[in-house]
Amino acid sequence: MLQALDLAGKAPQWVAPNPKVGCVIIKNGEILGLGVTQPPGGNHAEIEAMADARIKGHDLEGATAFVTLEPCSHYGRTPPCSDALIKSGIKTVVVACLDTNPLVQGQGIAKLKAAGVEVITGVLEQEARESNLGFLTRMEKGRPWIRMKAAASLDGKTALHNGKSQWITSEAARHDGHLWRSRAGAILTGIGTVQDDNPQLNVRGISVDRQPLRIIVDSKLQISPSAKILTGGGSLIVCAVEDAEKISVLRDAGNEVLCLPNPRGKVDLPALMQELGRRQINELHIEAGSKLNGSLIREQCVDELLLYFAPKLLGDARGLFDLPLLESLDGAQNLSFHEITQIGEDLRILARFNPSH
Amino acid sequence: MLQALDLAGKAPQWVAPNPKVGCVIIKNGEILGLGVTQPPGGNHAEIEAMADARIKGHDLEGATAFVTLEPCSHYGRTPPCSDALIKSGIKTVVVACLDTNPLVQGQGIAKLKAAGVEVITGVLEQEARESNLGFLTRMEKGRPWIRMKAAASLDGKTALHNGKSQWITSEAARHDGHLWRSRAGAILTGIGTVQDDNPQLNVRGISVDRQPLRIIVDSKLQISPSAKILTGGGSLIVCAVEDAEKISVLRDAGNEVLCLPNPRGKVDLPALMQELGRRQINELHIEAGSKLNGSLIREQCVDELLLYFAPKLLGDARGLFDLPLLESLDGAQNLSFHEITQIGEDLRILARFNPSH
Repeated sequence: MLQALDLAGKAPQWVAPNPKVGCVIIKNGEILGLGVTQPPGGNHAEIEAMADARIKGHDLEGATAFVTLEPCSHYGRTPPCSDALIKSGIKTVVVACLDTNPLVQGQGIAKLKAAGVEVITGVLEQEARESNLGFLTRMEKGRPWIRMKAAASLDGKTALHNGKSQWITSEAARHDGHLWRSRAGAILTGIGTVQDDNPQLNVRGISVDRQPLRIIVDSKLQISPSAKILTGGGSLIVCAVEDAEKISVLRDAGNEVLCLPNPRGKVDLPALMQELGRRQINELHIEAGSKLNGSLIREQCVDELLLYFAPKLLGDARGLFDLPLLESLDGAQNLSFHEITQIGEDLRILARFNPSH
Repeated sequence: MLQALDLAGKAPQWVAPNPKVGCVIIKNGEILGLGVTQPPGGNHAEIEAMADARIKGHDLEGATAFVTLEPCSHYGRTPPCSDALIKSGIKTVVVACLDTNPLVQGQGIAKLKAAGVEVITGVLEQEARESNLGFLTRMEKGRPWIRMKAAASLDGKTALHNGKSQWITSEAARHDGHLWRSRAGAILTGIGTVQDDNPQLNVRGISVDRQPLRIIVDSKLQISPSAKILTGGGSLIVCAVEDAEKISVLRDAGNEVLCLPNPRGKVDLPALMQELGRRQINELHIEAGSKLNGSLIREQCVDELLLYFAPKLLGDARGLFDLPLLESLDGAQNLSFHEITQIGEDLRILARFNPSH
């Protein structure tokens, strides 16, 4: 199963919106075939592994398949894997983690069992879940796994009062940030950051097959058509006002404009997240300023913080998140540390909001 | 040498103000004797190890002594160890780290060499230096190694606007904080913390042979004689005003009052640190509020930050350090991460100010 997970981890980003799955087929201690999810429309991992075994002349009768995610039971872009496994004569299927896709959800396993295939579940389940956190979150909540990235000094400051923030962290941390950008299906920022920093918000310094969708939360449609983030078109601007003239300028330049107002005249952030789920974005990467960051956290639109702390003190400067004043510590937003790593001279912290959040 | 360092690490806190030293004597691959610094007036590690070997009936002629700090060359409370090593017939002395005490500073080694003893230096030097950071800093700068402790949320907040801060971190982190308190010769806080939190500022939950000296920086002598920190007397109040009446009340309760004003009518913090060095405090532990913390950092009276980060967000609340507004990132206080550890559900960070500081 570790090998299957390793295979899954090597699947390229562009298998999205499909989950990254690995499959290893063995018999009598010998590996017969290996498979990994192919890009949408291509084979799933199980089919790949079976084909690999057959090409090598192996008979699958009585073999065991290790697969990191429950085999599918439905006709999507491809026929169901569970049917193919049953036909192959494979005796045992070991599954790391159930597929929470409502179209599957245990039905793949039920099909296998009904056909007399032995099924073992829960092997390295947590690790397998981590490997498909985006896909599974989308299946469960209808929205992507949402990761908010920020870089701060050790006293929690992200920029000086004059807005200067280039650079608080080291080059190594910034490169690492691009790796995280590259695994996301979309990168989201706010109009404040666009106006202050004029970022490109693409993946640089890493070879990628596709750039993530760039999204700008811009309630009042204040973005300048010459903002770097609109370079080349294809960006998604989300607003709360129907300004036909501005919208047509942005659309003519090849961008999409989506009007999603909430009753307070701001962008309806939870609705936006559902929309991104419908667009099959598995992982959303956020790089915004303290105001939008604060709104996203308050509206429970963040699963995980990706924080880079530089070993510096900036003193009286801008903070990480604009969150309301509390009267009691019980009102704090609670997280759990998931991973702590030193990146160059900086510290990288992954912390996840607790489920009660 | 690793064994000698291990011995040194096991020396109790009350060997202070002496350095913690370990000594291992070997011959033909056999350990003849072990020694560790005894409390002031007692034997140094080398003498202990030689006595240990002799009690066991070993002849030291031709043996090798591993010692974590350069043997002393001067008459202090005890006679010089270098003389005793020479007399013993020991052939080789391996020294981890030089003693920067102006009374020694290479003279111990010079004495040994002059007497024909082979001396090898620099073995695990950095580790040995770490084991006596307080003592060596005092020898080099005339003041203690100064460690500033603070507990904050992940967004760098130490208390709510209403002052509530009990508790941001977990019990495990608070217990760990007492371990750090216990290794210090003195604990320092400010009048603001005394008035807001009324702390005892002693070591609790850990068996200790002595409580650290409690120091309160209180420029205007505003402390109440009933403050918990004055319980039992023996505290040191440092002020910038000669208020004879208040001073006599505090002194009558068994406390010491020291007037150390700077030209701005505040306590002269660097002068206080030199005074603590004269009092043979090797390590000073600071737990204060953001104002005094900020002053201490600005006046270069901090070597190391000991920060506990809880996985929480507190939003609009009190920050870690009051430091001035910067116009450029070049003005940041620069540190280096020294150690990152998870303590219960919290994160402990040791970061040291860079030498240029």
